[in-house]
Amino acid sequence: MDLVANTLLSAGASPAMLHTIEEIPDFTPHVRALYVNVGTLSANWLPSMKAAAQLASQLGKPWVLDPVAAGASGFRLNACLELVQLKPTVIRGNASEIIALSRASVGPTKGVDSSHESMDAMEAARCLAEASGAIVAVSGAVDIVTDGRRVVGAHNGVPMMQKITATGCSVTALIAAFVAVDPLHAFEATASALSVYGIAGEMGMSMAKGPASLRMHMIDCLHGLDQAALLSRTNITALS
Amino acid sequence: MDLVANTLLSAGASPAMLHTIEEIPDFTPHVRALYVNVGTLSANWLPSMKAAAQLASQLGKPWVLDPVAAGASGFRLNACLELVQLKPTVIRGNASEIIALSRASVGPTKGVDSSHESMDAMEAARCLAEASGAIVAVSGAVDIVTDGRRVVGAHNGVPMMQKITATGCSVTALIAAFVAVDPLHAFEATASALSVYGIAGEMGMSMAKGPASLRMHMIDCLHGLDQAALLSRTNITALS
Amino acid sequence: MDLVANTLLSAGASPAMLHTIEEIPDFTPHVRALYVNVGTLSANWLPSMKAAAQLASQLGKPWVLDPVAAGASGFRLNACLELVQLKPTVIRGNASEIIALSRASVGPTKGVDSSHESMDAMEAARCLAEASGAIVAVSGAVDIVTDGRRVVGAHNGVPMMQKITATGCSVTALIAAFVAVDPLHAFEATASALSVYGIAGEMGMSMAKGPASLRMHMIDCLHGLDQAALLSRTNITALS
Repeated sequence: MDLVANTLLSAGASPAMLHTIEEIPDFTPHVRALYVNVGTLSANWLPSMKAAAQLASQLGKPWVLDPVAAGASGFRLNACLELVQLKPTVIRGNASEIIALSRASVGPTKGVDSSHESMDAMEAARCLAEASGAIVAVSGAVDIVTDGRRVVGAHNGVPMMQKITATGCSVTALIAAFVAVDPLHAFEATASALSVYGIAGEMGMSMAKGPASLRMHMIDCLHGLDQAALLSRTNITALS
Repeated sequence: MDLVANTLLSAGASPAMLHTIEEIPDFTPHVRALYVNVGTLSANWLPSMKAAAQLASQLGKPWVLDPVAAGASGFRLNACLELVQLKPTVIRGNASEIIALSRASVGPTKGVDSSHESMDAMEAARCLAEASGAIVAVSGAVDIVTDGRRVVGAHNGVPMMQKITATGCSVTALIAAFVAVDPLHAFEATASALSVYGIAGEMGMSMAKGPASLRMHMIDCLHGLDQAALLSRTNITALS
Repeated sequence: MDLVANTLLSAGASPAMLHTIEEIPDFTPHVRALYVNVGTLSANWLPSMKAAAQLASQLGKPWVLDPVAAGASGFRLNACLELVQLKPTVIRGNASEIIALSRASVGPTKGVDSSHESMDAMEAARCLAEASGAIVAVSGAVDIVTDGRRVVGAHNGVPMMQKITATGCSVTALIAAFVAVDPLHAFEATASALSVYGIAGEMGMSMAKGPASLRMHMIDCLHGLDQAALLSRTNITALS
């Protein structure tokens, strides 16, 4: 939650973290986008997640799902599949998570880290997008985004970002912020968020001496990003 | 919790974070001050908060309330109002939170970020202080502290501190630590804590390249603060 | 959890954090080591901790216990004593925690910070190791490791590490990672992990300006550690 909140603040968004079902009816109508992350899932948080997702869908607000470690247990997989039924605008995971969701099957898994390359998940992502109606994004060496027909790849980022906990969670949050600003172009917003986060990583990497300083420089760079850096560095290509 | 704990450790305090009602009767008698923060409020944490506040009051120990996003939902506002009934020594919030508490009314809100300037909340702060018997502090461009009669402003700090999650929570923790040391002068302790945290921000800002490096430098500066820096930088004035 | 996860990732491990009892049966069989930390203990997490520990023991997987603030309350002490019954491979605490566990007695305590030196806890550690069958480690100016007969001291580290929250929790996580790699030499793995973490602290300290930059440099250094640094800096001695 710490890195997610700081990522959003640095990008100019105004995040609030709520878990309690009692607050969902009052608070959800005020958000511009909802972000549901199942990272440290517990049985009593799931009803809040579902209530918020349902309400967001009813109100026509975009909502984004991060199915962290979807294949790690039957409980977690079922929770994610139930959330997918509630019509997320975007689903962003690593290759193993998207494959687990697409096949609705548990493990083999390494936990929260992917044991697949993102390109291996392209077909799974396309199927999941078609079945769910969501934009599906797969993080990896190349980040993939698909709506079931179009597929683009965002080629920014550096490998050391995987050595920082919650970078996946944070880029999903950034996707939610971008989609909040431009809900009618969720596909483009998703690809842009992945690219922008990767660019912040690239710029941070030039100053970093390891994962912890990369984490710091990334957020600083995200905050300081200007159009010139974006124009010269953005690397998004059509993959099909 | 991470930034709060590190802020307290850097300032020389010895924090412990507990949530469970089972531990309150054993542990609360050992604390020098209690800090209750409703940030990620859940229904099952509220009884612990109230039990701890009640016990602290009974034992004559100072306790400090941070009514995070008080106006964001009816559930949260009621929780905060119930806590205010338990006689906090100090209440510290942003302008929107103090206005919500003072008027006992929900929203409009941006979530955890204030949609009001601190000076707009001066009258609300004074009323809340009178009604509750607490010192009330409002963070903002100028930090305001009032006991219902006196009002002082602490003018330290830099705007980028608002781009770091939990800086508000952390300064409230610092207030609790200062009040623990000098419980008979809670008004002065509160103003000093706000000023000291702002000074750490100012000193950190001279080295920072963005919000994440500011966060790091702030804590380092708080740890290294000496009397000379405090004497030359403290900027507290009477506002009425 | 943030520092723990980043410490593990920097050291090359692949951590996953789970709390929910529903996930234990599916997930625990996939881990190479289990780490149970009672830091922010709540009544509904305890059954998950016990179920995971029991399953790890049954499956012959190493598991490591961090009895955070064991003496702070009767509830916490009982929870820790119940966990000790489930045959942890290693128990790592500060002196006050190990003394509380060994005597099965509550406080006096300062909360999560130790009010004893590690050397004061040597006899308590030895007793606890004999009674429990676990390797027992006590962090402090000198880190002590004992299996009840042998006692070694790891002399690496710097005092400022105590001004960073969760460094104790993080070194216990590193012990779990080391024991996962070499479960047949848990005694040596524990001493090595304590020394390696201390070396990262020493190397980080040469660049640090305070606790927050030390935290960053420590993780960077842990990630960048090479055999030369380890060979020249490791300082482990027999204490009896």
